[in-house]
Amino acid sequence: MAALAVIESAILCAMIRFAFLVVLTLTLPAPPRDLRVQGQRISQHLQALSQFGKNPQGGVSRVAYSDADLAGRQYVMGLMREAQLEVTVDAVGNIVGSRAGNDPSLKPLLIGSHIDSVPEGGNYDGTTGSLSAIEVAQMLAERHVTLRHPVQVVIFQNEEGGTVGSHAIGGGLDDKLLNSVSQSGKTIRDGTRFIGGDLALLAQVQRPPGSIAGYLELHIEQGGTLEKSKINIGVVEGIVGILHSEVTIEGFANHAGTTPMDQRHDAMLSAARFVERVNQIVTSIDGRQVGTVGWLKAQPGAYNVIPGKVTLGLELRDLDEIKILAMFNRIRAEAAMIGQLNDTHFSFSDPTLIHPALTDKRFQKLIDDTAKELGLTTKVLPSGAGHDAQEIAEIGPVGMIFIPSIAGISHSPKEFSRPEDIENGANVLLQALLKLDELP
Amino acid sequence: MAALAVIESAILCAMIRFAFLVVLTLTLPAPPRDLRVQGQRISQHLQALSQFGKNPQGGVSRVAYSDADLAGRQYVMGLMREAQLEVTVDAVGNIVGSRAGNDPSLKPLLIGSHIDSVPEGGNYDGTTGSLSAIEVAQMLAERHVTLRHPVQVVIFQNEEGGTVGSHAIGGGLDDKLLNSVSQSGKTIRDGTRFIGGDLALLAQVQRPPGSIAGYLELHIEQGGTLEKSKINIGVVEGIVGILHSEVTIEGFANHAGTTPMDQRHDAMLSAARFVERVNQIVTSIDGRQVGTVGWLKAQPGAYNVIPGKVTLGLELRDLDEIKILAMFNRIRAEAAMIGQLNDTHFSFSDPTLIHPALTDKRFQKLIDDTAKELGLTTKVLPSGAGHDAQEIAEIGPVGMIFIPSIAGISHSPKEFSRPEDIENGANVLLQALLKLDELP
Repeated sequence: MAALAVIESAILCAMIRFAFLVVLTLTLPAPPRDLRVQGQRISQHLQALSQFGKNPQGGVSRVAYSDADLAGRQYVMGLMREAQLEVTVDAVGNIVGSRAGNDPSLKPLLIGSHIDSVPEGGNYDGTTGSLSAIEVAQMLAERHVTLRHPVQVVIFQNEEGGTVGSHAIGGGLDDKLLNSVSQSGKTIRDGTRFIGGDLALLAQVQRPPGSIAGYLELHIEQGGTLEKSKINIGVVEGIVGILHSEVTIEGFANHAGTTPMDQRHDAMLSAARFVERVNQIVTSIDGRQVGTVGWLKAQPGAYNVIPGKVTLGLELRDLDEIKILAMFNRIRAEAAMIGQLNDTHFSFSDPTLIHPALTDKRFQKLIDDTAKELGLTTKVLPSGAGHDAQEIAEIGPVGMIFIPSIAGISHSPKEFSRPEDIENGANVLLQALLKLDELP
Repeated sequence: MAALAVIESAILCAMIRFAFLVVLTLTLPAPPRDLRVQGQRISQHLQALSQFGKNPQGGVSRVAYSDADLAGRQYVMGLMREAQLEVTVDAVGNIVGSRAGNDPSLKPLLIGSHIDSVPEGGNYDGTTGSLSAIEVAQMLAERHVTLRHPVQVVIFQNEEGGTVGSHAIGGGLDDKLLNSVSQSGKTIRDGTRFIGGDLALLAQVQRPPGSIAGYLELHIEQGGTLEKSKINIGVVEGIVGILHSEVTIEGFANHAGTTPMDQRHDAMLSAARFVERVNQIVTSIDGRQVGTVGWLKAQPGAYNVIPGKVTLGLELRDLDEIKILAMFNRIRAEAAMIGQLNDTHFSFSDPTLIHPALTDKRFQKLIDDTAKELGLTTKVLPSGAGHDAQEIAEIGPVGMIFIPSIAGISHSPKEFSRPEDIENGANVLLQALLKLDELP
């Protein structure tokens, strides 16, 4: 009898628990499936933000830690406060806008991107995702929608200079990176202080794996795949790894008029052969890997002096880290041979490597489903560009939503995404966030 | 009788005239063939001058119109005054130290060089000839030697940036040159004002052909010929012509991660192919011509952006102007083909051309004879470097004296000439000047 009573009691308990859950589900407001962003407002905000660091010839130079960056950040914090987000700047200078959830046991859902640009960059890279994330928060506030999870809109600092802000959250920063000089001319250390960070508290910024429920980032594709195939939404399967190495070529500076051609140790000539060889190596292999020499400095730098020293920046990208390292090794070996041709010497800085990152399969499906429910076409594709999402992948599942870039142009004043595509992307971000909130 | 008297009178006159000449010759001080410079004093002055614009890693960066240039000019003017020269600064900023002659009908004999340097240059280029010329004047003053001709010691401004000061005297300056930006960051116009020139009076600086008796310049060889063959003195047969053209390569700046290799318009890759091709073209022809790309700027200049624009400096030199122009035309044609490879566009600024200049044959012989009388070995050779002498050749006969450059190194902190070689060169300059003074 006693045993039977125990079993009956357990069944009763289970029934009561089920009934409670049913009531709870019916009582809670239904997920607002009809909720949509205001596309025009995003466009207005993009236009306003484009004034900070505006170039006379179009586009912006809003490199991290510049005065323009600081002004842009102030503007964005204002928008976040209008969206009823509680705004803080973390110890590394990331801007975090928080909206409370109604289940305190749940970890936060993150959405966001960055607002810094490359020198002479465009008005859509990073800003599209940042202002769309704020618009999502604005809509939640206006419709009084409280999610189960806390939501954090994060504007990561210095994405273009090595995903610095998100790296501080994911992997943590070391002194070497902090002491390196950014495009602003400031070290990352000084720049971080400039935007309000407090490096004494840096350890508090890094978050442990499993500390977030997930991260969603909307971004322009920066390639031409979506526009060419007339697809509305890209579902990102992974983000390529990126290797950077500073290459130094030492020759011998000498008079350009009196030094015979066969007695020169011309660092510029070696640099030229190197740039061409990098191109040949990268294009000689099947696949979508890319390799670039984006900057080069020759010293002393005058018509009538054979350059004695050249420094240049090598970048390699691919979804496969092993392939990146194999290309780098081959390039180093070939550089040694180029150096021998005119007795110049190549050296490579220890490469910085951002590992390739795959997005979460469930998030991919959720984004794909959401887009299709909104009547949009989708395509699964890799990201050739690095993103804050790949740093955040260290601490939780991430998903990325791409929208078309016209002609695939990015990091250029001619970078452009259509307002309707931005609105589509922001609606996918909003609805995907609502769905993520419901995942067990 | 009357006729005989006339003849007798004429004979008498001739005899008297002859006797007078003999007496005059005996009365005038003999040309001071034993006169020698004080080599140690030249070395001390070179050492003192090397402090202006001194680099921590050795050598100097005393580019024209810099603060260091201005300070060096003040120092040199002090030395000239000590040498009892009457010091003036002409309207273009050349420093002219004058010593009167005793025959007012004679045109001046010029000696001199320059004291400006290339960025990260050495301590002998220009300064050796400048301080030796001042030493020559100092010795004339100390020994109270007055020549028949007036002597002018001239320190020409901005030799390294295009023989600007001597060009103003020889060919005259145009607005294009005056408005061009020099290594100091100042335009030549502003720089000339900075060092005390008065461009309103520029027309007074240019001198007509035939207005000088001659110009002698002592200079380091800046090549390795004399040292290798253990020759004391180089007798310069001619100075190469120099062509400069600024090359602009326009591609398309785009994201280095998202733009496939086969869709790039990479200005850096085109620049690399160009630098290599210039080297191939210049070395594929017999002769002593040289070609250099000494500076290069890539925009926007970041690891993660494909350069959309590169500018670089092309220089070509040879004694034969036709060969220079033929090389330039071939390089332009090949550049167009390189551009087509990845749809980038090359354009060339109108080239500036300094014509080759031959030295005066009599001056060559006089320098050669003088050196041999001093017990020195000589070699006739061309100058691969441009010099003020080639500008002054426009207005009168010129001669150049070379001394060995150790390892042929120049335009470098490692540039060096031995004190004994400098002393030898300065003694040849002094004695050749005395001989020139006696030429009819």
